[in-house]
Amino acid sequence: MNNQDFVKEVADINTDFAGWYTDVVLKTDLVDYGPVKGTMVIKPYGYAIWEQLQSYADKRFKEVGVQNAYFPMFIPESYLKREAEHVEGFAPEVAVVTYAGGQELSEKLIVRPTSETIICEMYAKWIKSYRDLPVRMNQWCNVVRWEKTTRPFLRTSEFLWQEGHTVYATPEDAQDDVERMLNIYIDVAQKLLAIPVLNGRKTEREKFAGAVATYGIEAIMRDGKCLQAGTSHNLGQNFAKASNIRFLNKDGVLEYGYSTSWGISTRLIGALVMVHGDERGLKLPPNVAPIQVVIIPVASHKEGVIEKCQEVADALIKAGVRVKLDDSKNTPGWKFNEYEMKGVPVRLEIGPRDIENGVATFVRRDTREKAQLSLDTIATEIPSILEQVQQNMFDMAKQNLDNAIVETDDYNTMVNEINNKKVALSYHCGDKDCEEEIKNKTTIKTRVIHSYDDTHKCIYCGKQSKYRVYFGKQY
Amino acid sequence: MNNQDFVKEVADINTDFAGWYTDVVLKTDLVDYGPVKGTMVIKPYGYAIWEQLQSYADKRFKEVGVQNAYFPMFIPESYLKREAEHVEGFAPEVAVVTYAGGQELSEKLIVRPTSETIICEMYAKWIKSYRDLPVRMNQWCNVVRWEKTTRPFLRTSEFLWQEGHTVYATPEDAQDDVERMLNIYIDVAQKLLAIPVLNGRKTEREKFAGAVATYGIEAIMRDGKCLQAGTSHNLGQNFAKASNIRFLNKDGVLEYGYSTSWGISTRLIGALVMVHGDERGLKLPPNVAPIQVVIIPVASHKEGVIEKCQEVADALIKAGVRVKLDDSKNTPGWKFNEYEMKGVPVRLEIGPRDIENGVATFVRRDTREKAQLSLDTIATEIPSILEQVQQNMFDMAKQNLDNAIVETDDYNTMVNEINNKKVALSYHCGDKDCEEEIKNKTTIKTRVIHSYDDTHKCIYCGKQSKYRVYFGKQY
Repeated sequence: MNNQDFVKEVADINTDFAGWYTDVVLKTDLVDYGPVKGTMVIKPYGYAIWEQLQSYADKRFKEVGVQNAYFPMFIPESYLKREAEHVEGFAPEVAVVTYAGGQELSEKLIVRPTSETIICEMYAKWIKSYRDLPVRMNQWCNVVRWEKTTRPFLRTSEFLWQEGHTVYATPEDAQDDVERMLNIYIDVAQKLLAIPVLNGRKTEREKFAGAVATYGIEAIMRDGKCLQAGTSHNLGQNFAKASNIRFLNKDGVLEYGYSTSWGISTRLIGALVMVHGDERGLKLPPNVAPIQVVIIPVASHKEGVIEKCQEVADALIKAGVRVKLDDSKNTPGWKFNEYEMKGVPVRLEIGPRDIENGVATFVRRDTREKAQLSLDTIATEIPSILEQVQQNMFDMAKQNLDNAIVETDDYNTMVNEINNKKVALSYHCGDKDCEEEIKNKTTIKTRVIHSYDDTHKCIYCGKQSKYRVYFGKQY
Repeated sequence: MNNQDFVKEVADINTDFAGWYTDVVLKTDLVDYGPVKGTMVIKPYGYAIWEQLQSYADKRFKEVGVQNAYFPMFIPESYLKREAEHVEGFAPEVAVVTYAGGQELSEKLIVRPTSETIICEMYAKWIKSYRDLPVRMNQWCNVVRWEKTTRPFLRTSEFLWQEGHTVYATPEDAQDDVERMLNIYIDVAQKLLAIPVLNGRKTEREKFAGAVATYGIEAIMRDGKCLQAGTSHNLGQNFAKASNIRFLNKDGVLEYGYSTSWGISTRLIGALVMVHGDERGLKLPPNVAPIQVVIIPVASHKEGVIEKCQEVADALIKAGVRVKLDDSKNTPGWKFNEYEMKGVPVRLEIGPRDIENGVATFVRRDTREKAQLSLDTIATEIPSILEQVQQNMFDMAKQNLDNAIVETDDYNTMVNEINNKKVALSYHCGDKDCEEEIKNKTTIKTRVIHSYDDTHKCIYCGKQSKYRVYFGKQY
């Protein structure tokens, strides 16, 4: 398919962003619909992005001492009910196994929507003394949440994620963990995905079911809608009490542990598409792109062209670059469009005349800048060009983020601006019911708290403010 | 726990191998029982072994052009029924979701016991022409098989594995794939895990439900029992016909594709324990050991000891060795026993006198050999010592394998030898019912075919032989 076809076949990015998104993720082979409603198949190109993301995050987790493990997917129904807010939050969307091995089960099994309850059950068994603490484990796995309205990557019945679960001896240590992991998520978004994020504590209404406090990172899509891109929860002693996680402290006294949990998921791939994509398709930041440089031979039947392309590919691979040499029978023009649509950051074209002149032509996906590089120095220059692309993509997205934020103290202005693809920064009283009313009227929700400030008035009810908070619509 | 305690607390390896196995996997923190009967929690030390295994196998898959992807876990009940032998093979052990999102489902969902049916459904959608072939995808995921008798790693209701699924245009290409992947599995077992294996085609009775032919690798445990450690299936056109995977061939004619599937799982960790372990606990081959070298400071309060240990650790890490420096408050004696039990291949002891003499004391887990190494050359010597340990562990296991095999043409001898911890190599007629009778009488099954040979008599029924095949009891 050439780019002309692509542009014709996908919805217009400006007038139908949601349609554009679905068209792009399907047509660039990131994902397909699974046979069961609301499920997705992550195709190799999409999965390769997930692998890059896993590899970066996993390394960061291990550097701070987190260990990977694997806990069973089936949770006895009774476990979920132990923590009152937690069951309330998840009960409506769980999938339930009632038969197994040809028999009806005596206790129904919940397919994990998240694993706090079952992991805490094991921690209660393992943790005896302060010497056993902290315990910090992470698992990469699938989870199931039966959603009514679904969209590939953003909201699906089954998705992939990592969930970290810790227990500490003191509330301070637990809070440090919550912030440490949030900071890693900020780096995943900003350094790896080139997605600038808002970050901070979520309001009481928006926190995780069962948490004392939830912190999150929020990315702003091109249409001004927000996407919760990662969360880090301080669970206090809530789950420790529900699961009886107790340890003998240094004074020989039994105490409940302080736990946290934190997760990011395949929805980040959706964010990647919606933050960077344009009317030509995907635009992938080099740090997460499965293919960073595609080499396209021009007049490949001419002597020495393929050989030179292979030589450049080998030199780039040696320099640590993820390269694809496409020597298939398709025309160069077809290939130019194909890899542009797939968001490959840099394209190199090498033909007989280039070889004669000792150069390759390169085209950047982000700026569409076209220039020539000496073949002698290409292996050292490409890595720095990739860095420039990465930085530029972050800068452009940051500018979009900054432009999207409107500070206002007027409710009608807030609603109008948000309906006009903006995010509002406004004062709020912190009252759950007040927040609920705004949401019921407008579908607008709070995202993360900007700063605590009681010197203003709530934008909705007019009472004393508690904090300044971002409001927006969400995916 | 010191080693004396350990030896006391675990079952005797010679008289109660099954009890020894369970004790060892639990006490060395590889695994724990999950709350739901038959499930397991893979603890960090066990999961780290799985990560080494994944990393090796994944690299090998990618080198031969396989791509990773992810397919949904829930399979519509009707899919499983499409292939007659397949549903018969798996129906008795599936877990079934009947409720989700607060409602009874109109079609029940099977939690994947394996993904042939759902992956073939997608392939049927994606594959149109011979130009789309081959398609070769792999996924790392969890699967569920509701087993009555379970044992950690070896047989659990839920386990982790990889499953590769391919479609080719010709039966020859499919058969090549089956053999290529089997060869990779042989390397996983032999080169990574130091486990010598028997390999070959399985009999009609023992093949995968729905396959034309199954090939497998079989490892022999210390008690002479066999463990199926990996399988590679030629599915012929069976699943292509069931799922309607058709492609236009070069002559413009619609043809069914030829598919294969292949998998290895967390049960390999069980094999690792049962092939190499001894009365002191685990014994891990360096190539898969999460910790290859443990450094234990002696008289660590003395000036310079910890610093020197750290220096050695840094040098080894730089040399690509997976090192742990244990500077915890436990006694050196406690640590010696702890890491011996955990199967760490090499222990380094460094104390003030060693430092004075410019040496470190090293102890091999496999041979218990103790010697000294110059601190100046330790970073170059350790990698070659690790190679020696790896080779020696393979050689010892190979000797056990060779010793376990008894060639016999007499049925009673075969049964007696197998009951006496051996594996028999005997002729068989190839008849399913004949094989079934042997199994019903003795629990002995065929493992893999050694060679086709019709010049002998079947060891059971006396009719003309079809092949020479390994017989044994199994985990």
